[in-house]
Amino acid sequence: MKTAPGPGFSLVEVPVPAPGRSDVLVRVLAGGICGTDLHIYRWDPWARSRVRPPRVIGHEFCGTVVAAGEAVIGVSVGDRIAGESHIACGWCPRCRHGQAHICERLEIIGVDRDGAFAEYVVMPATNAWRLDPGIPSEVGAVMDPLGNAVHTALATELVTRTVLITGCGPIGLMAIPICRMAGAALVVASDVHPGRLALAAGLGADAVLDAAAGDVAERVHDLTAGQGADVVLEMSGHAAGVHDALRAVRSGGWVGLLGLPGEPVALDLANDVIFKAVRLEGIFGRRLWQTWEQMTVLLRRGLDISPVITHRLPLDRFEEAFARLESGEAGKVILTLED
Amino acid sequence: MKTAPGPGFSLVEVPVPAPGRSDVLVRVLAGGICGTDLHIYRWDPWARSRVRPPRVIGHEFCGTVVAAGEAVIGVSVGDRIAGESHIACGWCPRCRHGQAHICERLEIIGVDRDGAFAEYVVMPATNAWRLDPGIPSEVGAVMDPLGNAVHTALATELVTRTVLITGCGPIGLMAIPICRMAGAALVVASDVHPGRLALAAGLGADAVLDAAAGDVAERVHDLTAGQGADVVLEMSGHAAGVHDALRAVRSGGWVGLLGLPGEPVALDLANDVIFKAVRLEGIFGRRLWQTWEQMTVLLRRGLDISPVITHRLPLDRFEEAFARLESGEAGKVILTLED
Amino acid sequence: MKTAPGPGFSLVEVPVPAPGRSDVLVRVLAGGICGTDLHIYRWDPWARSRVRPPRVIGHEFCGTVVAAGEAVIGVSVGDRIAGESHIACGWCPRCRHGQAHICERLEIIGVDRDGAFAEYVVMPATNAWRLDPGIPSEVGAVMDPLGNAVHTALATELVTRTVLITGCGPIGLMAIPICRMAGAALVVASDVHPGRLALAAGLGADAVLDAAAGDVAERVHDLTAGQGADVVLEMSGHAAGVHDALRAVRSGGWVGLLGLPGEPVALDLANDVIFKAVRLEGIFGRRLWQTWEQMTVLLRRGLDISPVITHRLPLDRFEEAFARLESGEAGKVILTLED
Amino acid sequence: MKTAPGPGFSLVEVPVPAPGRSDVLVRVLAGGICGTDLHIYRWDPWARSRVRPPRVIGHEFCGTVVAAGEAVIGVSVGDRIAGESHIACGWCPRCRHGQAHICERLEIIGVDRDGAFAEYVVMPATNAWRLDPGIPSEVGAVMDPLGNAVHTALATELVTRTVLITGCGPIGLMAIPICRMAGAALVVASDVHPGRLALAAGLGADAVLDAAAGDVAERVHDLTAGQGADVVLEMSGHAAGVHDALRAVRSGGWVGLLGLPGEPVALDLANDVIFKAVRLEGIFGRRLWQTWEQMTVLLRRGLDISPVITHRLPLDRFEEAFARLESGEAGKVILTLED
Repeated sequence: MKTAPGPGFSLVEVPVPAPGRSDVLVRVLAGGICGTDLHIYRWDPWARSRVRPPRVIGHEFCGTVVAAGEAVIGVSVGDRIAGESHIACGWCPRCRHGQAHICERLEIIGVDRDGAFAEYVVMPATNAWRLDPGIPSEVGAVMDPLGNAVHTALATELVTRTVLITGCGPIGLMAIPICRMAGAALVVASDVHPGRLALAAGLGADAVLDAAAGDVAERVHDLTAGQGADVVLEMSGHAAGVHDALRAVRSGGWVGLLGLPGEPVALDLANDVIFKAVRLEGIFGRRLWQTWEQMTVLLRRGLDISPVITHRLPLDRFEEAFARLESGEAGKVILTLED
Repeated sequence: MKTAPGPGFSLVEVPVPAPGRSDVLVRVLAGGICGTDLHIYRWDPWARSRVRPPRVIGHEFCGTVVAAGEAVIGVSVGDRIAGESHIACGWCPRCRHGQAHICERLEIIGVDRDGAFAEYVVMPATNAWRLDPGIPSEVGAVMDPLGNAVHTALATELVTRTVLITGCGPIGLMAIPICRMAGAALVVASDVHPGRLALAAGLGADAVLDAAAGDVAERVHDLTAGQGADVVLEMSGHAAGVHDALRAVRSGGWVGLLGLPGEPVALDLANDVIFKAVRLEGIFGRRLWQTWEQMTVLLRRGLDISPVITHRLPLDRFEEAFARLESGEAGKVILTLED
Repeated sequence: MKTAPGPGFSLVEVPVPAPGRSDVLVRVLAGGICGTDLHIYRWDPWARSRVRPPRVIGHEFCGTVVAAGEAVIGVSVGDRIAGESHIACGWCPRCRHGQAHICERLEIIGVDRDGAFAEYVVMPATNAWRLDPGIPSEVGAVMDPLGNAVHTALATELVTRTVLITGCGPIGLMAIPICRMAGAALVVASDVHPGRLALAAGLGADAVLDAAAGDVAERVHDLTAGQGADVVLEMSGHAAGVHDALRAVRSGGWVGLLGLPGEPVALDLANDVIFKAVRLEGIFGRRLWQTWEQMTVLLRRGLDISPVITHRLPLDRFEEAFARLESGEAGKVILTLED
Repeated sequence: MKTAPGPGFSLVEVPVPAPGRSDVLVRVLAGGICGTDLHIYRWDPWARSRVRPPRVIGHEFCGTVVAAGEAVIGVSVGDRIAGESHIACGWCPRCRHGQAHICERLEIIGVDRDGAFAEYVVMPATNAWRLDPGIPSEVGAVMDPLGNAVHTALATELVTRTVLITGCGPIGLMAIPICRMAGAALVVASDVHPGRLALAAGLGADAVLDAAAGDVAERVHDLTAGQGADVVLEMSGHAAGVHDALRAVRSGGWVGLLGLPGEPVALDLANDVIFKAVRLEGIFGRRLWQTWEQMTVLLRRGLDISPVITHRLPLDRFEEAFARLESGEAGKVILTLED
């Protein structure tokens, strides 16, 4: 819990929260640490402007429903669920357009209300996705970022297309087997960390490119008969990744932007976007609820993202978990609460 | 004609060119001066890198077919035609994908081969579009930029959508009545030149915004119940226009980029593209030949772009015509060759 | 009210219904009679299988909110609203896919629960669409069928396309000015009733075709330079209309099917669909809530469907109203309850 | 060769044809027998109306370019190529719209001009697709029907979707591994021939349904949690297959129609298309040239259709080959001309 403004978190005892009419109370089984949690841990400018302590954090999680409000339908006590952390209002123009993922009044679990790095969390029943029995709880704990990967990758057509993924953090890594399952002609991944590139190769990338060791776009052109990639998934959030993406994509190609650059990025729009008739699309959250259905199907069909999870630690070793993440060497770090 | 490297053009006598097997020889009736011609006139870095004198320039034109090669089909001597200035190879992957407008071996009339600011021009018959009898030759002379406007506007769905057009040069101005005919809910246009804003209002814009006198994006939000524009057509080619476009577009909206910025533009991708799930699309040339059919239908159906044409001068007064264009006060300037 | 199984309706006194937590109580201002109401009036096989008397019927209506349940948001007492008659469950796979118009547990006002040919009706607040002040109540009363017309017409791209509308009942008639506003190149309407064809011409059809007096498809080919219509909106629900639609549509064209044939229709799939690469799409209900927003914009932008409303009668003259409808001569018949 | 009107074919000596300016002369390596060839063999009403003897038949083939006209580009003597049998005019509205597969003046090799069941065939160079070295000639010989399968399957999104394929002839069989590679959630295939169902299972169908032994649509609903199939590929060309397709598809689903019914099919449009908001799409030929690129990528990526080819016979045993096909027991029958 962030008990007061300032860096760090504390492990404290709090009362078990009570669910409202349309809520469920969830006993948490496992949670995933996200870059957002790290921002709140460090108490950086974004965190200071958005988070109001005291606040229990944590928005990637799975757990078991232990109580449900009287108006709850579709979820029952005993169900094992994964949490969709974005709570949409249901009433704004975007929600009424079927675009609830960009709801104007979006509230985020673990950021705007108490989250899931705790024994119990309360959430609207609508946001609790029942997990297939075959999905391990540690995978259930990372359905939220897996959903980012699925939403980005399946936002365009992949079958028979060549794909470049810039950035091999957990979401970029997860995207690799998704693109493979969707029938991509070629999946190339780039990063600057050799450890992540090794994970990328293990997850099925046809080629991995060390962005520190040469021009990514040039090598993508070499790998695609001079055409460039049909599709680029930008998952680094760095200016260099965005530049690689735009230079590597072919004329008429598509670039999905998921990684969040911390600063403005200077783009050569004339040469890299307009003359090439490139389409760029910003991707946020998960489609409600198409993305969740797609995730479920992919997992049933054999999608294996377990290599992305490199560390599993109990909740009370959260300081060590955050240290692992800060090192830049980890894939996904999981906090477990199972007995 | 650009007779030698350096600024300016000369009026010279040249032999009538001879059409090849698949070419037509066209007696030019009228031509439109484009910003590209101004770049070549001034002999700026782009022109120096691309144009090889001696070169007859001019790529917006209409004329009458006076001779045709033996393999020509679909066009006959006597036909009045407008020229599509982009000659696609027909064989590269883009051409074979139905994306000939971004052909890898594109050759442009008046840039890469002799153009139409002349009595006669030779061109492939495929690039000669037969004009409806009801279309005046001065409109025929600007089908090429009209096609840019149609291609950009109709690249997304407009019916019942709110539209902002940033930049009221000739193409931005032409886009206004196109958006109106396509059923837009609201058409707003912005520019810094009062004269162009007056033309925009005359062409049917519901609101015109002086970008020099206040924040365009704020006023667009005021005009759209706080939502922002569903669609933005960026036709200024200035960084300020691109920034207005991205700040004015609503979450989930679409931005077509046609104007060519001369330098990199710094974009706040996180806030303006990713969190808002905005789609950006670079637009180049005209769809071959869907855009030409769409233009033909719109003109038949009453599209009137004549107010965009502010000056008409005979070819031998080309120096005056370029001076008008350089002043920034003109709309489209036409060079005429009719007797 | 249908008080018991059998033909006809009765005018009876019933208690004012009480709204639930998420419902509104609406004082009805006007209602439109739909073909469905006629089926229930006649007590035909479909009605016998679906409707459970006693049942207040009527599903096209507008009224004023006079009471609201405690959980209602987005609508207030005093609002003038139009009713969306299709109540979606919000939980089935279709609802969770943004396709609530084909909800698996759809409940229809005036069919499956008490309707609006009454002084008061109770409905979920979500289904009450606040009307712009400029929209007359008699137009508000027919937003439901207007939504069918908008949903069908805007299910495909219309700008610069040629359109045939087969069937000039109220929905087909409403589609005519919608297609015009959306930028159609040509709008042709066919029917067998001369009175309806006259209404069609008055609503802006470029050509009207008497289906009883010649081959509709042939004349459409004549009107489209031999190509056929790019788009056909089938709104007759008759086998002859479907056949005309498929024969009139061009290769690669699109046919929206809204009219409900009472019996199987024999189609020459090889020649009329497969060799021509035609796309057919069944249209049902209204997109929730995109269609309602589109309707609102079109009405604000000047869409005038008032000529479609040919008769206005007070509720207690309902027998006369149904007789008008049965005659086949009426457009839309409105029942009014205003003082 | 069909030497004269009437059933059967003859093996005759004819002169080697001479290529025109834009043609190639191809030494045939192998050809596939299509249902169309069987119609011509039997000289049924369709064949009598379309084919003008004397005519060399055969339109599925691969071979080696042995001579090329002076204007040929993109293909060279010595290249091993597969033939696209549909020759588009390049000038009609459909061709100019990027829809050359439904060209208005389509000419078919082996039907409208001499075909490939011969040592040599002349064809436009544009229609010769250079084969990857890794593709066996017998696969090259069936690129034409493989393209039908790819065109149909990839005409809609397949990733995470459930698919039913009605009809397990060669094209239906080929569609099975294509759907698998494209990431389908489930691939179900139906037919009435046990031998074909066994082939279907061998090609990777998750379930095979004997249409003679029970209700296909009911079993599809059982396999899809009551939803029905997201996608149906109708490849039987029989009324029963079309009915199964429409009853098995879920609300909002998509049906691709490729099989050619010989007679009109009576459809319950109200219940099976309109209330369910189903989309139907007629599929013809192959997208020029996207389908060919997709085929090439799929084959490179491991698509194995060799189990579909059940018989390989030399050209002079063509009578036996046609007999095999007529038996209904064969998959694809190949005629070979290799030494």
